[in-house]
Amino acid sequence: MADLPHAVEISEEGPREGFQIEKGKIGSADKIALIDALSATGVKSIQVVSFVSPKLVPSWADAETVVAGFTAAPGVAYTALWFNEAGLARALAFRDKLSLKGSISLSASEAFSRKNLNRDRPGQIEAMRRQTAAHVAAGIAVTRIGVMAAFGCNYSGDISPADVITTVADGLGIATEAGQTIRDLSLADTMGWATPARIERVVGAVRSRWPALALSLHLHDTRGLGIANAYEGLRLGVARYDAAVAGLGGCPFAGQPGAPGNIATEELALLCEEMGIATGIDLEALIAAARLAEQIVGRQLPSAALRSGTLKGFRSKAA
Amino acid sequence: MADLPHAVEISEEGPREGFQIEKGKIGSADKIALIDALSATGVKSIQVVSFVSPKLVPSWADAETVVAGFTAAPGVAYTALWFNEAGLARALAFRDKLSLKGSISLSASEAFSRKNLNRDRPGQIEAMRRQTAAHVAAGIAVTRIGVMAAFGCNYSGDISPADVITTVADGLGIATEAGQTIRDLSLADTMGWATPARIERVVGAVRSRWPALALSLHLHDTRGLGIANAYEGLRLGVARYDAAVAGLGGCPFAGQPGAPGNIATEELALLCEEMGIATGIDLEALIAAARLAEQIVGRQLPSAALRSGTLKGFRSKAA
Repeated sequence: MADLPHAVEISEEGPREGFQIEKGKIGSADKIALIDALSATGVKSIQVVSFVSPKLVPSWADAETVVAGFTAAPGVAYTALWFNEAGLARALAFRDKLSLKGSISLSASEAFSRKNLNRDRPGQIEAMRRQTAAHVAAGIAVTRIGVMAAFGCNYSGDISPADVITTVADGLGIATEAGQTIRDLSLADTMGWATPARIERVVGAVRSRWPALALSLHLHDTRGLGIANAYEGLRLGVARYDAAVAGLGGCPFAGQPGAPGNIATEELALLCEEMGIATGIDLEALIAAARLAEQIVGRQLPSAALRSGTLKGFRSKAA
Repeated sequence: MADLPHAVEISEEGPREGFQIEKGKIGSADKIALIDALSATGVKSIQVVSFVSPKLVPSWADAETVVAGFTAAPGVAYTALWFNEAGLARALAFRDKLSLKGSISLSASEAFSRKNLNRDRPGQIEAMRRQTAAHVAAGIAVTRIGVMAAFGCNYSGDISPADVITTVADGLGIATEAGQTIRDLSLADTMGWATPARIERVVGAVRSRWPALALSLHLHDTRGLGIANAYEGLRLGVARYDAAVAGLGGCPFAGQPGAPGNIATEELALLCEEMGIATGIDLEALIAAARLAEQIVGRQLPSAALRSGTLKGFRSKAA
């Protein structure tokens, strides 16, 4: 089957992304319980909190409590998100427990930057220059570019591979100026525009230009195509994916409330494992963590695999 | 992109399959309203009712009322399901309004036949012989074989392509004995075991043996892989699919209640249209029908595309 990788790395983003969008307040103890449950699943990377302004995002006012509270498991990288120097400073306080990496985040759609960040393209580039300098000053290497809206945008429509190429080139320019070497490139389907055909075109364009960059896909299941898009990534040999347990999270850009956000980790892991691609994940433990996530948020989460379970039990009964 | 077809035919199975599994009673007028809404979407085939024993399936006791009540649109084939001669007789009363075709239905898993139909393989073959004869006697051609559990089974585990080949050969034998010519072969992922890798193997095996048969895929989204499996079908050039609007229906074989059944028609149609594969479907009208289906059943249905809508509105605003 095409270039299917032998193994993939899945970065779990459920705790950080998922708890931010829930309407009711989620207690710190519950957040910690989910992180601890995820730590026992074999997932190698978990994004645990967002260091953002408590005024803008009250649901992450307890970021410090959560980071202090979870139990770090050996071999698991715990990551965090931040958007400015204040956030970076808060993250640095936990540099022993968290895996801190610098990232240059740009949108392939200028309209999205304007709407979402109130910055035009030059403004966003300037912001990333300042942020990169702050990371370097703090001794945090900047090794990654993240491209938002890489497959389409609610405000500017279709995004061409050339738009993505320009955006990556801008990011590489910022890194080079700051003496940093980019190794990882994340392509994000922020608003659920990707199809397998668009994945193929964009991944192909980026790879021909920068064959040495390690690609990762951040896919949303907004319109139900997320796992098909991940499968196309696998076919193309892409070996790194973000996902959220139980499909925690949501999409603030969808037409109606309740639309899914990130693809569900257990659906991606099931797809991989059933096709012989190693994830390192214990699927039964992951589905137990997904059930815990659903209990915590108190509403039905989008994952189908969460409800139907794996095939393992059926196989052993049939054998 | 591989052998993507230029156009696909999607058979809508939501009304028949979806209303059967709902717990509350769905009124005949609501069933008719959904069929009429679907008739206006561009879908070319709609399975409207099941002629089954009202004792066994009380939710289809009103099959006659529903068939009499909907308004047939020109160019749309309205189909029905039945499992025995009593059901066939009821269907025949509507042969002017319904498109009646005979089908030979066999399971690739004998264990599934035993559990689901209380028949072993020879018993099921014998039942299909009798049913085929009854169709021929009624002047209904038998042109299709449907293979259940073609990709895996909760009772017997993995299903090999060789099992599927044997099952199709059995069906062809029944047809030949009765002087019937099979043109269509439907492969059903009855319990949600398919992956793109299994789709490729089974479709490949069946095609090398019987290249002239027109294949269709009946896919379930039990574990969230349904649309990825449909995409693999498209890559292989398969041009016929069953689906259910809004993901109506469910899976009686899943571990927990609430697991999805059939793939959602609007997600499949969106996948196709966004990749340039014509469906003949007006996606906005289809999503309106999906919303009606959700209103009728009074619970959240699994489709993500239903909640997020199409990209058309965003594109025209961006232009």
